[in-house]
Amino acid sequence: MIHITRRERFNAAHRLFREEWSDEQNLEVFGKCSNPKWHGHNYELFVTVKGEIDPETGFLLNLKDLSLLIRERVIEKVDHRNLNLEVDFMKGRLVSSENIAAAIWDELAEGVRKLGAELHCVRLVETENNSVEFYGYNS
Amino acid sequence: MIHITRRERFNAAHRLFREEWSDEQNLEVFGKCSNPKWHGHNYELFVTVKGEIDPETGFLLNLKDLSLLIRERVIEKVDHRNLNLEVDFMKGRLVSSENIAAAIWDELAEGVRKLGAELHCVRLVETENNSVEFYGYNS
Amino acid sequence: MIHITRRERFNAAHRLFREEWSDEQNLEVFGKCSNPKWHGHNYELFVTVKGEIDPETGFLLNLKDLSLLIRERVIEKVDHRNLNLEVDFMKGRLVSSENIAAAIWDELAEGVRKLGAELHCVRLVETENNSVEFYGYNS
Amino acid sequence: MIHITRRERFNAAHRLFREEWSDEQNLEVFGKCSNPKWHGHNYELFVTVKGEIDPETGFLLNLKDLSLLIRERVIEKVDHRNLNLEVDFMKGRLVSSENIAAAIWDELAEGVRKLGAELHCVRLVETENNSVEFYGYNS
Amino acid sequence: MIHITRRERFNAAHRLFREEWSDEQNLEVFGKCSNPKWHGHNYELFVTVKGEIDPETGFLLNLKDLSLLIRERVIEKVDHRNLNLEVDFMKGRLVSSENIAAAIWDELAEGVRKLGAELHCVRLVETENNSVEFYGYNS
Amino acid sequence: MIHITRRERFNAAHRLFREEWSDEQNLEVFGKCSNPKWHGHNYELFVTVKGEIDPETGFLLNLKDLSLLIRERVIEKVDHRNLNLEVDFMKGRLVSSENIAAAIWDELAEGVRKLGAELHCVRLVETENNSVEFYGYNS
Repeated sequence: MIHITRRERFNAAHRLFREEWSDEQNLEVFGKCSNPKWHGHNYELFVTVKGEIDPETGFLLNLKDLSLLIRERVIEKVDHRNLNLEVDFMKGRLVSSENIAAAIWDELAEGVRKLGAELHCVRLVETENNSVEFYGYNS
Repeated sequence: MIHITRRERFNAAHRLFREEWSDEQNLEVFGKCSNPKWHGHNYELFVTVKGEIDPETGFLLNLKDLSLLIRERVIEKVDHRNLNLEVDFMKGRLVSSENIAAAIWDELAEGVRKLGAELHCVRLVETENNSVEFYGYNS
Repeated sequence: MIHITRRERFNAAHRLFREEWSDEQNLEVFGKCSNPKWHGHNYELFVTVKGEIDPETGFLLNLKDLSLLIRERVIEKVDHRNLNLEVDFMKGRLVSSENIAAAIWDELAEGVRKLGAELHCVRLVETENNSVEFYGYNS
Repeated sequence: MIHITRRERFNAAHRLFREEWSDEQNLEVFGKCSNPKWHGHNYELFVTVKGEIDPETGFLLNLKDLSLLIRERVIEKVDHRNLNLEVDFMKGRLVSSENIAAAIWDELAEGVRKLGAELHCVRLVETENNSVEFYGYNS
Repeated sequence: MIHITRRERFNAAHRLFREEWSDEQNLEVFGKCSNPKWHGHNYELFVTVKGEIDPETGFLLNLKDLSLLIRERVIEKVDHRNLNLEVDFMKGRLVSSENIAAAIWDELAEGVRKLGAELHCVRLVETENNSVEFYGYNS
Repeated sequence: MIHITRRERFNAAHRLFREEWSDEQNLEVFGKCSNPKWHGHNYELFVTVKGEIDPETGFLLNLKDLSLLIRERVIEKVDHRNLNLEVDFMKGRLVSSENIAAAIWDELAEGVRKLGAELHCVRLVETENNSVEFYGYNS
């Protein structure tokens, strides 16, 4: 079994807040990340898949296909977007890195299977100091 | 003469657009960077100052003072902010990297002089692929 | 379950040696790292914790709290310090990266639990070529 | 148990192709990576080993020995080489990152054992966007 | 005046050698970089241009246009190629980083002018330890 | 004219202080960098030289020769050393980054000339946030 990781990037605006809370409450829990006028990040997304090496190609899968899948299902929806207002798969979810990573897992798991591999990890790097990893629901 | 560079970072939302243009016109010129619902970046700011080494301290200036100046005049105003809506020194300016860098120069030049050095360069890194450098008005 | 990683940094002096050995013996085993007059590093510390996402906040835990814990229990004790002479949690231990990582685990495990998560990994990067990871005593 | 990772680097030429296929077939499957006149990479190799800390030295193993092993068994054979034509351990194998990583595992596993540790992971970074990890045959 | 830098990347094979010299002579002068079977690199290319900020757009120039120019004139010719055998603008030139950088300057200078800016610097990073900068023929 | 930059690294201990001052005075001016028990850094050293490309080799100079010069004159003297106590070229100088960079210039300028090039810049990176550049005495 081999693991392959593909990095893609996107730049987006977001805000941490609960609609039913006041700005003050949001500020208390989420700090400056709750700024009602938004802030943003250069997100780095590392998608790791696993499976057996195909002896004919020497590949687990064709990285171009994986890149295409990530772009179609994730990057095109989030790049240069407002993650709270414009991204279907974040509707109704608090836009924390934890939730973004889990939602990206949901976007990709089925497509990775169709490419003949298994999704292993979605890693989302928000800043050089902060990152999250999601290994799926049975991990 | 010696050059010293201090790096600071900030995360912010912004949008490239001209108010008097339609969204379509803005989209044509600025592409996805004109998204009316904003996007954002992890900006890296490199401030380079120059001058003579003080023989008593071995310093051009105390980097803590330079860091403090950058934080007071720039980072506190832009970090986790919307650069179009919330930053006094960007009011009325198109929020391009070029203009941000020039505006940061204006914020810092006087303060650097008071620290006994001369501002040499403001470098702003918007993404790993794009950056700008401003060397002042006589360069 | 989600994993979150926080990076903190510290700059410190240290030396690899056994007190009961001569400088020659130490040099033979530890090489130039045993220099009696010390050397030092910019250490990068990556602390990974795991647990369930809190549906109210979208967080595993508040990264500010994790950062504060790491700073109080580790960074304040080691930053700009001599790891052999000045750090309580390294007293009596050989100051190798392996032992530093294990000792940092001991400093953090209880506090992470109080924040509602579980310590998963302490990764210490000594140079761009050398790093260690400690996953706890049952790993 | 502790994990230690050593990074080494090499620059090499390679080509993805099957000898029994035409250039057109190779182009279809492997894209521009099948260029008959070769292309190349700066490869980064991260070798992770695991084991118990030796209480006498504070080491899992001496990183100099690990570095020497990697250089003798891998780097000297691949650095500034053509991976398809000049590397004994890639003879008869398709020169994909997956296969290179697995072959490097075979080169190192026994030697790591002799150093008193166990090989845990071979990670090969081909570009800033693409990397593979091999954890051995029972993983 | 403002400076803008765009990074692009390419992966290529090359060899340092003089055709009229024997392999031994080439080995003596160029070392392992003269390997007749080629080696390769992940090259990073930083193109810096300078000029005045357009008050209407806040841009020196549109970075998409600069990126397009670099891709058309350079990246498409060199990416996944053999720099000695397949690149028109390197024909008859020794394929050193110095010469590649100067040749890329020749490819780009006119096009940058047509975009309304002036080419300032071509920086080529061959490895994390080695890079060259070419500032044009009058520098 | 072309510029070439070579990176080398060293790990060292140091302390900012004036012998004739008390620890309290030193603490006031130099902060935690004055710790009498030392601290340390992973220093990155970027040496830039300039000159004409040799048409026979395509080189400004052979980077191996430049690397060798830097290692002999600088790295061997400072790596895994105490910069205050063990480095001849820092004797009697305050061990600030500014002074280290200038002293390294003095170590290298003559040797670079003998290699047929001219020393252009010594850049010393102390941390990811702090660096200095020295361009010589006439800059």
